[in-house]
Amino acid sequence: MSDLKHQLKERLLTARSAVSSFENDASRAVFTGSALAVVLAESASDVSVALAWANSRNIPVSIRGAGTGLVGGATAFDSGLIVSLERMNAIIEISPGDRLATVQPGVITADLDEEAQAHGLFFPPDPASARTCTVGGNIATNAGGLRCVAHGVTSDWVAALTVVLADGRILRTGARTRKNVVGYDLTRLFVGSEGTLGVIVEAVVRLESLPVGTPVTFWAEFDELAAAGAAVTRIVGSQTKPEVLELMDALTVRAIEEAFPSGMRIPRGALLVGQTVGRDAAETAQAILELCRAHGATAAAVAVDDALVEARRMSNPALTARGLKIACDVGVPVSRLAQMFTGVAALAERHALEVASVAHAGDGNLHCKVAAPDTPAGIAAADMLIDDITRLALSLEGTITGEHGIGQVKHHELPWQLDEVAIDVQRSIKLALDPRGTLSPGRAV
Amino acid sequence: MSDLKHQLKERLLTARSAVSSFENDASRAVFTGSALAVVLAESASDVSVALAWANSRNIPVSIRGAGTGLVGGATAFDSGLIVSLERMNAIIEISPGDRLATVQPGVITADLDEEAQAHGLFFPPDPASARTCTVGGNIATNAGGLRCVAHGVTSDWVAALTVVLADGRILRTGARTRKNVVGYDLTRLFVGSEGTLGVIVEAVVRLESLPVGTPVTFWAEFDELAAAGAAVTRIVGSQTKPEVLELMDALTVRAIEEAFPSGMRIPRGALLVGQTVGRDAAETAQAILELCRAHGATAAAVAVDDALVEARRMSNPALTARGLKIACDVGVPVSRLAQMFTGVAALAERHALEVASVAHAGDGNLHCKVAAPDTPAGIAAADMLIDDITRLALSLEGTITGEHGIGQVKHHELPWQLDEVAIDVQRSIKLALDPRGTLSPGRAV
Ligand SMILES: Cc1cc2nc3c(=O)[nH]c(=O)nc-3n(C[C@H](O)[C@H](O)[C@H](O)COP(=O)(O)OP(=O)(O)OC[C@H]3O[C@@H](n4cnc5c(N)ncnc54)[C@H](O)[C@@H]3O)c2cc1C
Ligand SMILES: Cc1cc2nc3c(=O)[nH]c(=O)nc-3n(C[C@H](O)[C@H](O)[C@H](O)COP(=O)(O)OP(=O)(O)OC[C@H]3O[C@@H](n4cnc5c(N)ncnc54)[C@H](O)[C@@H]3O)c2cc1C
Repeated sequence: MSDLKHQLKERLLTARSAVSSFENDASRAVFTGSALAVVLAESASDVSVALAWANSRNIPVSIRGAGTGLVGGATAFDSGLIVSLERMNAIIEISPGDRLATVQPGVITADLDEEAQAHGLFFPPDPASARTCTVGGNIATNAGGLRCVAHGVTSDWVAALTVVLADGRILRTGARTRKNVVGYDLTRLFVGSEGTLGVIVEAVVRLESLPVGTPVTFWAEFDELAAAGAAVTRIVGSQTKPEVLELMDALTVRAIEEAFPSGMRIPRGALLVGQTVGRDAAETAQAILELCRAHGATAAAVAVDDALVEARRMSNPALTARGLKIACDVGVPVSRLAQMFTGVAALAERHALEVASVAHAGDGNLHCKVAAPDTPAGIAAADMLIDDITRLALSLEGTITGEHGIGQVKHHELPWQLDEVAIDVQRSIKLALDPRGTLSPGRAV
Repeated sequence: MSDLKHQLKERLLTARSAVSSFENDASRAVFTGSALAVVLAESASDVSVALAWANSRNIPVSIRGAGTGLVGGATAFDSGLIVSLERMNAIIEISPGDRLATVQPGVITADLDEEAQAHGLFFPPDPASARTCTVGGNIATNAGGLRCVAHGVTSDWVAALTVVLADGRILRTGARTRKNVVGYDLTRLFVGSEGTLGVIVEAVVRLESLPVGTPVTFWAEFDELAAAGAAVTRIVGSQTKPEVLELMDALTVRAIEEAFPSGMRIPRGALLVGQTVGRDAAETAQAILELCRAHGATAAAVAVDDALVEARRMSNPALTARGLKIACDVGVPVSRLAQMFTGVAALAERHALEVASVAHAGDGNLHCKVAAPDTPAGIAAADMLIDDITRLALSLEGTITGEHGIGQVKHHELPWQLDEVAIDVQRSIKLALDPRGTLSPGRAV
């Protein structure tokens, strides 16, 4: 490693105490080995040097943004190299005329959004982790968030990338134009590739103009989760365009109120919370509330502020605090939401386990969280329920992961959704770009 | 070929007279060879049988939707097999609840749009060729159109694909959900792959709800094309959201008026034509007209009907009829439009050739068409000007093709935009999916 040290100097950390804080992400994957070293990259060239070095020695490399990932994608490898992008956190340029920003991968998502807002623009992808995760991590996982229902996922906001390939070569994809059909869409190939095809060292992302006026927050209570699901299907099928449309079941609302008391009312079945924006925000919110009332809401109104949306962002820590920590990230077509919720309730009853459901409802993307005591048997039982929920989503033409990715935690689920041909094609692409298999081996595909 | 005939029966055409009508597309690429046969596929299985047969014999295959392509992507190969999708033209299902349509690849774009409209929905991609081209062709070329400025390109509207691979295996990509991060985004890899990675035999495409009310058409005249370009930059950078924003220079307007007389007024420099939709359509149109007046429009108003937009759709045949037929499809960042137009005018003067410019202006996507007599020297001179225009676009951080693709006609331009690493990665993907190189060999990448 002395040759690498010679090139990277203090940007290579090898002290155990320093290295260990880069070995885990926010998932259940617990790393028990010990990584060789951490590259605190400051440039594309640092990354290139590091990858070429590791590749020529068949040393596995893990790539890390902020480590907020939930599937063990950034977890270290035993005797592997860790490439951290946290120091590459510059916003290189904002071009208001083209609504583009050029950023280094380690910029914190919320920081980019804030900087864009200073130009009357915003960066639509807004995972609940926006204040801690990186734009590079968002791109590598194709992150979702609360505003997806209106603006799509991260993939829809990436124009061009600079990527260091496994062997250290530097690849440029995409263009600064709004349309570009030159060759295969390599930009989109890297979006969601979870650190298995290359290290994103620079990105040109698209920005959107800030909507006029103040957002209007609305809420609706339902006695049954399934009824709320059906209402969401109607809203999404209507001409109204909510900016945010989130669903929490009673247990989730109770957990949030317990962890962060704010006087939130606990619904019998579920609470739908949303926002509308733009000139018509108030009218659109009323139209949505009307749809809710017509489809089973027991109470529905406009809120005085956005506290309910902020509360929704706290669901993850709140549920974890209450012991509901074994989670999934399934998706179903929006028309299947009611069926999905009914099915989840039946499975919870059959397994005799407590399940909380939170959903980016407008996208049909559900996070079910299951209570489990901290014993191997308890966790195994929770996992069995999560597996059944995942298979239920698939039976409703859904997906095993809507936004968190596969990483290592869900790797065994891959064949549940993809057939042999699909897996084979995925692997042939991995092999084409990383023939020695040194980048995040055994993950994602 | 008798074994193939045995399997495909009357779906295999071998008579020279029948085969020859499938050998060319709408581009300049003139096919002088002679293809073996045409497969008039009626099912995925027909396609699979045909590709496996050709692959095992190293027979090149061209894939054909409606043959409206402008870059020779669907042109036949000498002694090659032609797979035509024109008979696979069923709309299998429209699911209004999920705003999805499942279609066979040969369905005509406008037919899908019409069927969607019967459900209060529409299919946003609308190339000017929508009444003749196929959805499969749109996906394979990632087609653009007039509504892109508001709704993005075809890529943004494809949820899932069924593809027959070069060796005959059947691959399913994507999902019916709005979010899905399982493995690499193979759906987007096939979008824009121009028939080089597989044959699309089924697609699940997204639909959008029809806007409320009637669209409002507006127009603005400018004395200088560059001024019109600058106005477009301002409009796109503003909070107004036009549904259509097209620019025609004076020569184009004159050509349309000559070919299809309707009393259109010929501007001195350029005519900007657009539409707004939705509840605020009239207000938004006024706001855009205000921006035009503030940025050099000499006249600007709302139109009584959409005749100007329809006229714009006729620019291609009108210019061709006037002898302006050597074309490009370049794109620049929207902020560079004025620079681009000024540069094109200077190049036209330097080459002493007549150039007409039509632009999907809101996307920064220009089609410049150059006049050329039907002589080799005349065409070579026009090509030199087009080359210079293309390099100008690149120097403004643009692209050599915004929507038509590379095919064979622009193959020599690929290295102008992509460096060695990018070309190498593109080819490695081609090799991974089509190791024998039988699908559209030598094209696109
Ligand atoms: C409280 C909480 C809430 C969350 N809410 C959401 C949510 O609403 N929506 C959502 O989608 N996710 C959510 N997440 C998950 C997580 O925040 C996202 O996946 C995020 O995109 C990860 O970013 P990161 O910088 O932390 O990446 P990391 O965790 O460091 O890495 C994630 C993956 O990306 C790869 N990677 C990171 N940077 C690069 C790079 N520059 N080049 C190549 N590969 C790279 C890693 O190898 C790994 O596979 C949440 C997580 C937490 C803890
Ligand atoms: C008058 C006119 C106006 C036009 N306007 C526009 C415009 O506004 N925007 C725009 O983007 N284009 C435009 N075009 C170009 C053309 O119409 C588009 O490229 C269209 O998408 C091609 O569709 P097609 O069915 O005719 O495909 P074809 O010409 O048959 O094929 C095009 C390419 O796609 C491949 N292909 C076709 N079907 C499949 C399949 N099922 N599976 C795999 N590969 C397949 C072919 O191999 C070829 O490489 C225009 C063309 C004309 C003649």
